Order: sequence, then structure tokens, then C-alpha cells
Amino acid sequence: MSKITYLSDMLTSVFARQTTSDEQLSKGSFDELCDAVLSHRGESSGGRLASRLLSKYKHANDSERLEFFEMLADRFDINAEHTIRAAQHYAQSRTAETLTILSESVESRRQELLRRLNRVPGATTDLVNMRADLLVACKANEELRRIDVDFQNLFRSWFNQGFLVMREIDWTTPANILEKIIAYEAVHAISSWRALRKRLEPSDRRCFAFFHPVMPDEPLIFVEVALTIDPPETVASILTSDRMHIAEQDATTAVFYSISNCQKGLAGVSFGNFLIKQVANELSLSIPSLTTFRTLSPVPGLSLWVQQQLSVLPEQATSQIVDSEESVDDVPIQWLKLADRVMSATEFEFSEEENSQLQQLVAWYLTRACGSEQQSIDPVARFHLGNGASLDNILPSADLFAKGLAQSAGVMVSYLYDLDKVADNHEEYAEQRTIIASDRVLSLLEPDKRKRSKLA
Amino acid sequence: MSKITYLSDMLTSVFARQTTSDEQLSKGSFDELCDAVLSHRGESSGGRLASRLLSKYKHANDSERLEFFEMLADRFDINAEHTIRAAQHYAQSRTAETLTILSESVESRRQELLRRLNRVPGATTDLVNMRADLLVACKANEELRRIDVDFQNLFRSWFNQGFLVMREIDWTTPANILEKIIAYEAVHAISSWRALRKRLEPSDRRCFAFFHPVMPDEPLIFVEVALTIDPPETVASILTSDRMHIAEQDATTAVFYSISNCQKGLAGVSFGNFLIKQVANELSLSIPSLTTFRTLSPVPGLSLWVQQQLSVLPEQATSQIVDSEESVDDVPIQWLKLADRVMSATEFEFSEEENSQLQQLVAWYLTRACGSEQQSIDPVARFHLGNGASLDNILPSADLFAKGLAQSAGVMVSYLYDLDKVADNHEEYAEQRTIIASDRVLSLLEPDKRKRSKLA
Amino acid sequence: MSKITYLSDMLTSVFARQTTSDEQLSKGSFDELCDAVLSHRGESSGGRLASRLLSKYKHANDSERLEFFEMLADRFDINAEHTIRAAQHYAQSRTAETLTILSESVESRRQELLRRLNRVPGATTDLVNMRADLLVACKANEELRRIDVDFQNLFRSWFNQGFLVMREIDWTTPANILEKIIAYEAVHAISSWRALRKRLEPSDRRCFAFFHPVMPDEPLIFVEVALTIDPPETVASILTSDRMHIAEQDATTAVFYSISNCQKGLAGVSFGNFLIKQVANELSLSIPSLTTFRTLSPVPGLSLWVQQQLSVLPEQATSQIVDSEESVDDVPIQWLKLADRVMSATEFEFSEEENSQLQQLVAWYLTRACGSEQQSIDPVARFHLGNGASLDNILPSADLFAKGLAQSAGVMVSYLYDLDKVADNHEEYAEQRTIIASDRVLSLLEPDKRKRSKLA
Amino acid sequence: MSKITYLSDMLTSVFARQTTSDEQLSKGSFDELCDAVLSHRGESSGGRLASRLLSKYKHANDSERLEFFEMLADRFDINAEHTIRAAQHYAQSRTAETLTILSESVESRRQELLRRLNRVPGATTDLVNMRADLLVACKANEELRRIDVDFQNLFRSWFNQGFLVMREIDWTTPANILEKIIAYEAVHAISSWRALRKRLEPSDRRCFAFFHPVMPDEPLIFVEVALTIDPPETVASILTSDRMHIAEQDATTAVFYSISNCQKGLAGVSFGNFLIKQVANELSLSIPSLTTFRTLSPVPGLSLWVQQQLSVLPEQATSQIVDSEESVDDVPIQWLKLADRVMSATEFEFSEEENSQLQQLVAWYLTRACGSEQQSIDPVARFHLGNGASLDNILPSADLFAKGLAQSAGVMVSYLYDLDKVADNHEEYAEQRTIIASDRVLSLLEPDKRKRSKLA
Repeated sequence: MSKITYLSDMLTSVFARQTTSDEQLSKGSFDELCDAVLSHRGESSGGRLASRLLSKYKHANDSERLEFFEMLADRFDINAEHTIRAAQHYAQSRTAETLTILSESVESRRQELLRRLNRVPGATTDLVNMRADLLVACKANEELRRIDVDFQNLFRSWFNQGFLVMREIDWTTPANILEKIIAYEAVHAISSWRALRKRLEPSDRRCFAFFHPVMPDEPLIFVEVALTIDPPETVASILTSDRMHIAEQDATTAVFYSISNCQKGLAGVSFGNFLIKQVANELSLSIPSLTTFRTLSPVPGLSLWVQQQLSVLPEQATSQIVDSEESVDDVPIQWLKLADRVMSATEFEFSEEENSQLQQLVAWYLTRACGSEQQSIDPVARFHLGNGASLDNILPSADLFAKGLAQSAGVMVSYLYDLDKVADNHEEYAEQRTIIASDRVLSLLEPDKRKRSKLA
Repeated sequence: MSKITYLSDMLTSVFARQTTSDEQLSKGSFDELCDAVLSHRGESSGGRLASRLLSKYKHANDSERLEFFEMLADRFDINAEHTIRAAQHYAQSRTAETLTILSESVESRRQELLRRLNRVPGATTDLVNMRADLLVACKANEELRRIDVDFQNLFRSWFNQGFLVMREIDWTTPANILEKIIAYEAVHAISSWRALRKRLEPSDRRCFAFFHPVMPDEPLIFVEVALTIDPPETVASILTSDRMHIAEQDATTAVFYSISNCQKGLAGVSFGNFLIKQVANELSLSIPSLTTFRTLSPVPGLSLWVQQQLSVLPEQATSQIVDSEESVDDVPIQWLKLADRVMSATEFEFSEEENSQLQQLVAWYLTRACGSEQQSIDPVARFHLGNGASLDNILPSADLFAKGLAQSAGVMVSYLYDLDKVADNHEEYAEQRTIIASDRVLSLLEPDKRKRSKLA
Repeated sequence: MSKITYLSDMLTSVFARQTTSDEQLSKGSFDELCDAVLSHRGESSGGRLASRLLSKYKHANDSERLEFFEMLADRFDINAEHTIRAAQHYAQSRTAETLTILSESVESRRQELLRRLNRVPGATTDLVNMRADLLVACKANEELRRIDVDFQNLFRSWFNQGFLVMREIDWTTPANILEKIIAYEAVHAISSWRALRKRLEPSDRRCFAFFHPVMPDEPLIFVEVALTIDPPETVASILTSDRMHIAEQDATTAVFYSISNCQKGLAGVSFGNFLIKQVANELSLSIPSLTTFRTLSPVPGLSLWVQQQLSVLPEQATSQIVDSEESVDDVPIQWLKLADRVMSATEFEFSEEENSQLQQLVAWYLTRACGSEQQSIDPVARFHLGNGASLDNILPSADLFAKGLAQSAGVMVSYLYDLDKVADNHEEYAEQRTIIASDRVLSLLEPDKRKRSKLA
Repeated sequence: MSKITYLSDMLTSVFARQTTSDEQLSKGSFDELCDAVLSHRGESSGGRLASRLLSKYKHANDSERLEFFEMLADRFDINAEHTIRAAQHYAQSRTAETLTILSESVESRRQELLRRLNRVPGATTDLVNMRADLLVACKANEELRRIDVDFQNLFRSWFNQGFLVMREIDWTTPANILEKIIAYEAVHAISSWRALRKRLEPSDRRCFAFFHPVMPDEPLIFVEVALTIDPPETVASILTSDRMHIAEQDATTAVFYSISNCQKGLAGVSFGNFLIKQVANELSLSIPSLTTFRTLSPVPGLSLWVQQQLSVLPEQATSQIVDSEESVDDVPIQWLKLADRVMSATEFEFSEEENSQLQQLVAWYLTRACGSEQQSIDPVARFHLGNGASLDNILPSADLFAKGLAQSAGVMVSYLYDLDKVADNHEEYAEQRTIIASDRVLSLLEPDKRKRSKLA
């Protein structure tokens, strides 16, 4: 074989190039491998170089990975000057060409690197795991978050809801997937295979998950559902072995009592909204008797918030005896102290009055305590309200397991998914932060129930 | 149900909003539907609005679709001034936040619209078809090409090679897919189901295609392969029914004799490169006796080029009798006239000398005639050379079917895929436009074979 | 390795045995191979010997196969004396042991041979084909039918309905199966792939088949169904391309217009009964609007029967002019002559009176003309009546295609499957040969409609 | 609808029949249901009656089931007189018809009943379970074993090896199947899901099972395999977590260390022979380095045999001090006493001499102790020797788990599957009870190793 240089004037420019062999590259640094993957050679190597880079990453230790990330953040960034000029150019002449140039100017070579890595079979899982590492590393090094902008751009496209596949998880599901359900369950821990089975069987206990076609063994998110006649008032009534089984056709209520994201590397790429609605749709089609879709949800932010409220109390207020009139920011100190006491206990006998006070405390917390962007500071509330659910019920003494007591003084919340209203609700919440709540929740906030209230 | 507005100061701003119902929207214009899909309501409607927009598009006629595209090009564009400021901001302070803002400033709302449409099950196929329409519309209206920039950005991510699935196409393939193979075959037309079967059976005739998981019934690209002992010299020897069948284990050469893109809406999203290499890899694993991977390719650009060369001839040169010494741009006019004669014939008896002249003509055409970006003007040559293949053989009288005579005077070309060298070759071609050619092709270009040559 | 003879007293009996090697066997005769397969060695050879015998059979020509069958019939038969003694023994002492001995005495070694052959992967298909050959050979040699008793015994177990899998055949079915539908269609020939597609699409044209799990590429039997609003009166109205498509939810009637057995080697192993009922069940579940299940069936035996009736006519009756009063066995000669005339024509214009006469002729034929076991002599009538269907309508001029005219003078019949009554109907038919017919069919047989009738 | 009785002479015989409705039948007795299933009505009822009978059986208690079996045994039997006549007839005239009559005369209506039951989807599993019940019931009532003759006849056809599907069991296998592996493991109990996983992973631990297509969730039999370099000497070395993992390509030996039948209702329908050979074949194809296939097997019959030998000892021999010269039937009493001592211990420290004596004892037991049909009295030995394996090694102290000590004094045996010789070995064993043993096993039996021996 000989070579013809395509253009004769190019002939002179041929210089003696020293081709770095693949073998040398695998021994090479991350820098060299990244350059190689991004080169013309990398383009055409059919994934060999990309595969090598991924393999090197997998075998790297934490500090090597950190160096890799630092290199990614440092090199391969976009050139802002270039973008400014491209944008100016586009402002003057809005053509496809100038738009393409502008668009490309904002896409870092890092992003192209990740795209090329993704061509390797199985690489999507590797890249999701790589981002999980990156998110950890970002905590110590703010600079690295720029890399995450690229990951987010790509993952938002790759994990577009249209590409996700919903599958029911049951006892005929492969064991390698079931063990991940056990491992990833984030709300009510699953203690054993036997306990798992009770979440999947018989037909009034269901589980659904989203998968991506190229990650068939990795659930992305899953939701556990109990089919019931009456809305459950405690999580124990759902998880107990003693319960009566309901025939599918008798069920009127589907209770989403646990929803767990599985992939840390997909943090911020939201699927839960879609999953809940798709499950609700499928269930309502296959079980016509179902009329209500609601959650039985934890209140994970309560504990921290109570501590914060208590920490700003004037000294005298920390005394044992609390004047029932005293309050912090409208919240009676008595309630906060009660919650604090419950959260420190390993078990607790609630009086009716205590339950009532905790209910009111949580009602206040969910509807008044606000964080950034004027949203509820409770992450679970943010999620469901943001999905268009309404705040339907606040259930005291609903989770008496250790975690439930410590986290939310045993209180749970039921959010209601009224499929006809979620779009409206979502719109109001998104645009005006309006929380839709049931009358019974509202009544917890009414002035006559509390001493001083600004709501009136 | 009642509503709590999350922030009291927002309460005053609540204005009487008139919710446009879904039903009204479906009767609404494309403008209204696009706005609705992009609204918070659209975000949460679970695909109903997006589904309606897609449906309206499918039922629209050409002029309505054109209006839709014009609207997309006009509204939803990015704001270049915003981008300039975002880029300046990023230049001053390179943080994840400023990068995100910059990145978002370059993403048009059009692109978000397409993303949301894609959440509907089956929408990816619709969007690919929509782009096919768009590409037609762009021919008449340059403005619309800005929309295509968004399509390209999305499709490049969605159809990342890592998401494609290669499947062998054989006689057990579902009929609805096989009929698409018949319909999409672009090189050597398949006249009937019987003819199709001969491309798939017995085991020395193979076919492979790429699919996307969400378009399981739509091949994206496919390649037809003949397993042979000697490299074929004509396409008829491959397609004839009379041929000897070769047992798999006797085959030494895999001939890629047809490669067809199936989706007009994926024009410019390249898969062929990956498909050929993946097929070559799989075949070499399953049939160890295979040592050579080559094509038997058409020369589709020859006809037009010959006409162009002839059209610039001085008048006297168009006379019947051509001085064998005369040439255009180093190409003997005699050769061009010969090619022209063959291309007008429905059949032709070639003399050895004519074959030789046509070979040399094509050798010159493929290696010297260059178009934009200094690449070969022949699209098939660009494709295979760009993949890292080498120009191995020029075969006169290789395609005597009507199309072959008309298109390339019956000449075909064999490009060689040497898996060990494609990465090197690609790199040289991509960086320096170096064409790797075999000695026998080079010899066709040698000075002693032609009267006047600048190659010497 | 050495050998220990298990019982010392056996040691002396060890004789020098000459083991016939596998290689020798493959060259051996069918006799030798059969003996080998049936030997202890065959039991343990893991299918190698059986595989060899099947292969030898496949490569044998007709006369070699005949020799093989003759050998099977001759050797390997049961020993009737042995059975007599075993039965006497069982009569005296009814134990499991004596029953087993009796049972085994009636199972020929031929049957064990076939069982062992069936252990080879894919052998079931081979054995079905072998029986098809056998059935042909039986026509010339009655002796061979004893072999078929063994085949029938085995196939009745192997193809037990519980093992069959019903699959819908549609345009996504693999081509290798669809081509068999084209090939096996026995009622209304399918002329092309295009014609096939019209039998499968759109949703008011359906097709269902039974498969056996070890013959996944071979349909055993299939039925074609048209979903309609009114019962069709001609087959052309079903097969035409011009027809209106019916939406599934509008259909009230499912018309089984073609049912074809695919495997000659499974003749006499009945599936059609089950298939029709299973299809009717599935359709009624998935399309609640369906209320009626009926056939549009040919009358394949009419032609032969008419010829037979005419052949026994007294000479004068064959004259052109027929006295309308004359009859053979109660059937007016005029009708027979009319039918004969139609059957000889390639097309025919029917008068109303002719249609009426043909209807009455077919009514008589189906209900009065009886063959062996007092059943209808028409095979299609036997099949549907035996399934528990009723004789619902006789449709003149319903099949004007050449085959329809020639076979049944254009007449077709609609049998009704009333799922609530098929069991009753079947019972009455099976026990008393009672044919259930509709009033309109009965009225065709009424005395006032015909001159002389014994029905009155 | 009216009725036409097919033959006029039948009309008179119509009697007022009282059709028992399906509803009445479901309340009816087993007798009535059996009659109904066997009637013409049952033939045509599409499985409804059969389904009802199966359901009634499932809900029946033990004594009701016993009554059902007694009824089956009593009614539905064959008529031996009929068979005698049919056999005599066949002896006189060997035609297909007389053979069919004879064949049918030996098939009880019971068998037809079971066939019809099997038409119901899922019934095969029910019938397998029914036979499991039957086998238990047979222990108390010999009469019932006649029913089992019919089950065996059917199951032998239905579970013909050609219909079985081998599947590898691994960690991606559905949980409902894996739990059955845990439940059915009969040799070395699996204590937990974690323990199960260690039998399936990594790639040097494998498991394979046979399934029947209509029982896809029910393994019929499975075998566990360890890939090793050296033959293991103890079962602990296979089951321990501490072991070195072997890469597939380094393995030379496949050790079948556990094989378990899963379905009690398939007792006597042998699959193990085929499974071991098919696994050996598949493994040798996929892992070319494998050269040896052997078992690590228990000796389950040793304990009982030792007790029997000891029980016939003359009184004085039971004294503590045993004269090492004394023997029972050539077996030194000393060895029996040693084995007895080990079998009673929960753990045991073996001396070299004790190991040697136990080895010799087991060698004697396996090769000399014979039961019915002159076969080894050890069931595992019978199985492997019957498959054509050879007795390759006797391993003392190989199973020190409680069950292993109690059952076989800790001794295990390795049978060798030499795929080239199994057919020969099987033949010799089947015809002459010749046991093929290795030299090292033979040497254990040599005269100089023992005081008195008849082998010399």
C-alpha cells in the first residue's frame, strides 16, 4: 500500500509523525488518552481508545480520579471569547451556519469526549458512575462543578423520558435486579429477601421501575404501591405481614408509600414525576375500581428544621417548663419541644393532644417554612407539590419505626395525585408557589387552633 | 380543596387566570399548542399536550406544516444579546453557574419543545419524520435551516452510537422490517421478496442493520455482505442466482456490496462508519477464516463530473473526432467522451482498451477531482476514505445494469477495510486528505500510462 | 481403567464382544442403525446414533425409505401371544406389575425407537415429515399402516392440546413463518405477499395459528378471521381490496373464512376444533362488541357427490330435457343437472331460481347424504358439526372464483359457533348424529318446496 | 334453531335426555365430573369441565383425594377379557385396524381422562402434583399403583427428552425460580440467598436445569458444577467462600457436585442422565480447556447397609473389642464398627488408618453389595454407573458436615464421565452389570490389602 496525498500542495506539509501506538497509550496518562480519544484516530478507532480510558478510570484510585477530574475541568473548557464573537456574529446574521458555530462554541470538548466514551458498549453505566464520583469530588472542589454542567447536558438528552421503559418489578424479576431494589430502597429499608417479597406479593402490593434500554440491569427509580380500600393511617399497616389481602378488583386506593432514586450519578435528572403518573395511568387502566392515588410520605426535613428553630430560642425558653403561649416565628415553642422530645426517643406513647400538636407543627412546617426560591424546605414536599399533587392529610403516629420517630416525630403526610388536576396544580405551584391543600389540613392552620397566627 | 398561596405577598398578585382547557387547545393553532407544551402545564400534563401537537402535525397538509416550521424559526429562537452577556460573564467568572447560564442561553426554546415532544411514546419516529419534512422545506426557505440546528443537536445525542443495537437481518426477521429493507435499498434495487431472500440466504449472503431501542421497527441503516473466496469483479456475480454457495468456513473475504441509509430524517447523523466496522468485527469473530473486508462500491458522482468536464470543453473539442492528445485539466478528452458514450447506452460491449481508459479515468476522478474541504467529490469515496478504508481496486465493466452504466459507465470500486489500519488511515485522511491507495490503483495514475501528467 | 464385573458369577460369561463403532454404524443399514438406537449403547449415546439414523433417512430416496418402512413394519412388531398371556395374567391378578407388563406388551419396539429418535433436537419436525412420507407409502402398501398406529399413539400424546401455543399471525411475524402461511393456505389461495398482507391487516382481518414449542417455525394449523358488522354473503366481499375497513369496536361478527392444516404428517391429529374455540374466546374477551362467531365455508364434497348421483341416472334421464318431477333418491334431477352445468363453467350468471335450486340441493346434500358412521359425507360439514357448530345458512353465488364454481357450484355455507351451545350440539351430534340447523335452512327442506319428500 | 336428526331411523331412539348443566356438575362428585369430562360434552366443552375437576381436586383435602384415587383405580380400568380377544384377533390378522383395537383396549379411560385434563392451560403442573400425592397414597394402598401405570405412560411421552429445554441458572434468573433451587437442593442444602449466589457466581461455579415448555417456572432437575484445576478432595473446598476463583480458560475439570430432582410427581421419569451429558457437552464446547468431567458424590446408602450388616452379627461380635480378623460376608467387622462410630458422631478426627479402612469399606460396598436386579444397592452409584460413568475415586473425610458424617462416615465418591466411553460403559453395565473402576479403586479391593478375600 502506498499513499496519495489528496492535494499536491499538502504533500510538502507532511512531516514525520510518530504514531503513538494503542499499547503505549494504555500505559499513558489520562491526558494522553483524552487527547487520543478526541483525535481523528480516536474517532475511527471503533471504541478501542475510549474503552481503554474507561478501563483506566475504573482501575484508578480516588486521588487518580481527582486528578482526572481536575484535568477535565482545566483543559477542554470552552473559549468564552470565541463564544462572544460567535454570538455577535449571530446577532448580525441569523443563519444556520452562524447558529451552528455559536452552538458549537458553547459545547466544550469535554462534552464531545463524554459522547465518544459513550459509544463503547456498556459505557452509559460507567459514565453514570463517573458522575457519582464527580459529585462527591465537587463537594471539596467547586471548580469541578463545571464538568457537571456537561454531564447534565448529556444526561438530560440521553435519559429523555421518551427513552425510558417502565417495567413492573415482581417475584419473577431477575435476582440481580431485585437485589438492587433491596439495596436502593431509601424510604423504608428492606431487611431481607423475605421482606422484599412482601412488597411485591400478593397482588395488592406492587412495584414499578424505570429502566434505560442500554442499562437493562440497573433500575433508575422505583416506586412501591399498596392497593387498599381505605387510605392507610400508618406505614406499619402497609408493611405488616398480618394484614388482610385485598383482591385487585376491590381496591379503590393506590398508595405510593416509597419512591427511591437508584443512581447517584443521575442526581438532578428527574424521573419521579413521570414514574408516578405513568404508574397511576397504568393502574387505573388495568384496575377500573381504583379512584384515588395518594402517597404515604415521610417528612425528612422536619428534624433539622426543629433543631434550627430551637437553636435560636432565647435562653430562658430552653427551660423545662415552657409557657404554652411562647412561640418562635409563630410556632409555639411547646410544639417544637414536644417534637424534639419525640425525636430523641426510641419509642413514644402519644397522647391525643400531642398528636394534635405535632400535626399542627407539620402543617406549619410544610406550608410556611420556606427555603430558596420560595419553596417548601421539605424535599419530599417540594417533590410532590412540584409534581402537581396536593397536601391532603397529615398523619401523626404514622411511622413509629426508629427512623420515623427520629426524622419526623412519627408524623407522615399523604399527598394526593388527582390526575385531572395535577397539571393545573403544578402550574399554580410553579408560577406562584401556591400549595393546594385539603380542608382538613387547612383547618390545622386556622387561627382558633393556635394562639397567634398571621394567617387570619 | 382549597389553596394556600405559599408566600403571603404573592396572594395579592393572583389574577383571574383563564385556564385554556385541553380540548380548546387541540382545536387551537400550532402557536397555542407550542406555548402550552412549553408551559408549566405542559411540563406536568404527562404528554397529553405534546401528543396533541404531534397528532395535529401528522394530520396537517404541506402548507400547514410549512407555517408550523416558519413559526418555529421565527419564535423560540435564542437571544444573541443574552448569550453575549452570558459569555462575558463567564469570561470574568468561570463557575458552574455562569457556565450553566451561558449553556442555557444558547439552547433555544425550540429545542426544549422537541425534547418535550419526545417524551410521548413513539415520538422519536415522528420527530425523525418531521425533520425529513423540514429538510425538504429548507430547500425553499433558508431560514428554516436554523430549526435544523436544533434537530441536529438533539439527534446527535439521542442517536449516539452507544444506544444503537445491531441486529442481523435474515429470513426469520419480521416481515414489516423486511419490507423496509426492500423499500430502503438504495444501491442495487430489490425487485421482490424472492430477490430479497437471495440477499439473506444461504449463509454466504448476510445483512446487518442498526436499530434504536425506541424505534424497533425502523432500521436506521443496513449493509449487505457477500462472503466469497475471491474478491468479486462484478456485482452480477454477487446477485446472480446461479452462483456457487460458499460454506461459511471456506470464506476468506467479506464484501460489503450495498449500504443504505433508511431515514431521510437522520441525514447527516452518521452511522455507516460504525456499522461497517462492527459487522467486520462480528464476522471476523464468528468466521475465523475471514481475512479480508472490502467493498464493491458504486461511483455515483462520475456521471455528473464527466458532464461538467465536457461542458467546459472548447467548441472544437466537441467534434466527433478527438485527438487522443487533447485533455481537460490533465484528463484526456478521449476518456471523457468514452465515458459519456457508455453512460448514454443501455448496454455496451467494452473493448479491453476502453476498459483500461475508464479505469484510468475513474482513478483520476477519485484521487484528483476535489470538492469542498479538499475532499473527493465522489460521495461514496468520501464515505469510505473518511472511514479509514483504502482505495484498493477499480473494476471496469463491473456493473452492467442500467443504473450502473448510466451512473459510472459500468465501473465499480473496491475499498479495503484493513481493521488494523483504519484508524491510521482515517487520521491521515482527516488531517491531510491523504488517500491510501493500492499499487494497482497507483499504477493507473503513472505517467507512462498517460500522455501528459502532472503527477510525475 | 479396568473393569469389575459386578457379580462374580457373571465373570465367566463375559465373551469377547465386538463393539460396532459409531463410524461403522453410520455406514450401516437401516436395520443396524435401528438395532443400535434400541440397544443399551443407543440409550446412552446421547442422541448420536439417533441423529445418524434421522440423517440417513433424510438423505434416502423414495425406494430406500420404502425399504425402511417395510423393515419397521416387519420387525419391531408386538408379540400377540405375549399380550394374550399378559392379559390373562392381568385378568387373574390386577396389580400394577401385571398391568405394566400388559401395557408394555402392546407397545412395539418401533414406538420406543420413535421415542428415542425424538430425543434429538429438532427431531419432532423430522418425525412429522417421516409420517407424511409414511402416509403416502401406505396407499400402496396396507401393511405399513401398522407403523402408523405407533405414530398416532405418540403424536396424540406429544401434540396434546395443552402443549400447543396459539400465536397471532400478523405483519410483524417472521417472514419464514409467513411464507408457510402462503404455502399452506388450503381454502382460498394466497397469490402474493401483498395478498397475504390483506389477510392480516388492518385490524378487521386477523389470523391465528397453533404452534408446538419444539417446532417454533412450523405452524400446525391456522385460521383466518374477518371482523364484520353483517355476515358476509360472498367470499369476494371479504377478500376484495375495495372493502370498507371496520374499526375493531364496531365489529359484531367474527367470520372464520379459512382454516388450513399445515402438516400432512399430523393428519388425523385434530387441532381445528380447539383453535376455533380458543380464537373465539380470545376475540370475545378483547373485542366485547363481538356477539356472533360463524364461518364462511366451502362445500368441497358437492362436486363428487353430484357426479355420483348423475352417474346412476337411468339412461333417459340424461337427456337434455329433464322432467322437473324426476328425481334420484328424492333429489330432483333438474337440480343435479344445474349443479353439473355450473361446475363445468368458468363463469356463470345465476338466475334467482337457479340460486334457489342450488341452495336446496346443498341443504339436501349436507343433511341427508351420509357416508360411513352415518356422518355427513362433506368433510367440512363433518368438521364443523362435529365441533358443535350448527348449520346456519346456505349461500348461493357466494364463491364465484374458479375453484368455488367447480367444487360447489358457487355455493358456500355458514356454520354458527354459539359458544354457549357447542358442547350440547357436539354431544347430540356425536351420540345421535343430530344436526342442528337454523329455520332458514330447515325451510329449504320443507315438503312444499319440493315435490316428493320423505321428511314430512 | 331446530334440530335435524341426521338419520331418520335414529329419530325413534331419541329419549328425553336430562342435560346436567355445568353448574350442577361443579357441585357434583368426582365421579360425575370424571364422567362428564370423558363424555362427548366434555370433549367439546373447551376445557371448562376439566378445569372444574382440577379445581375441585386442588381444593380437596387428603381423604377426599384418597377417595378420588380409589374411584380412579376402581372404575376406568381396562377390560382384560377385551384385551385377550383383541390380541387373539390381532394374532390371526395383523392389520392396522386390529392393532389399533388392541392398542386401545390396553389404554384405560383413566388415561384418556388425564389427557383431557392436560388440555387445560397449566394443567401439566397440576397433574405432576397429583401424581406426587398419588405416590404417597400408594404406600398405604397397593391398588392405587395401577393408576400410576397410566401416569407413567403419559409422563414418559410428555417429558420425552426432546421436549426439555436446558437453561443455565445464574444470578439473572428470576427469583421465583431461584427460590425453587434453594428449596429443591437435595444434596448439600443451601442456607440462604447469599449461599445460593456462591453456587452461581463467579464463573467457576455454574448451575444448569431442565425445564418443560409448559412448566416454565418449574425446574425439573438441576445440576451444580464447579470448574477447577485439580479434582477437589472435599466438598468443603468447593463450598467455601475462601477459595481462589479460577478463570474459565484455566479450568480443566468440571465437577458435578450436586444433582437434584425437583418434582416428586416425576419420580421414575429420568432426566439426570441427559442433563449431565448435555451440560458436559455444552461446557466442553464453550470452554475448550476442560478435559475431565467428574462428580463429587455422596454415598447415601452406606449408613443403612452398615446397620444391616451389624444387625446380623453373632452376639459375641458386638462386643467392644473386635478381632481384626473377623468379618461378615468378607467385610472386616472392624471396618463396620468404625463406620458405625463415625456415623454416630457429630464431628470426628480421622487417623490415616481409619481413612484407609473407610475407603476400603466403601469400595467393597459399591462394588460387591448388590440389591435387586444385581445392581449396586447404593442409589447414587446405580445412577452414575447406569449412565455409563466409571467409579474413579473414593475420598475419605470428604464431607465432614453433619449429614455427610451420618450418611457415609464422611466418605464421598468421584464418578468419571469420559464422554468417549459412556456409551460403552453403559452397555457393559446394563447388559452384564460390569462396573468400570479405576486402578486406584481396584487396588482398594486387592487381596493383600485385606485378610480374607474371595476376589483373589
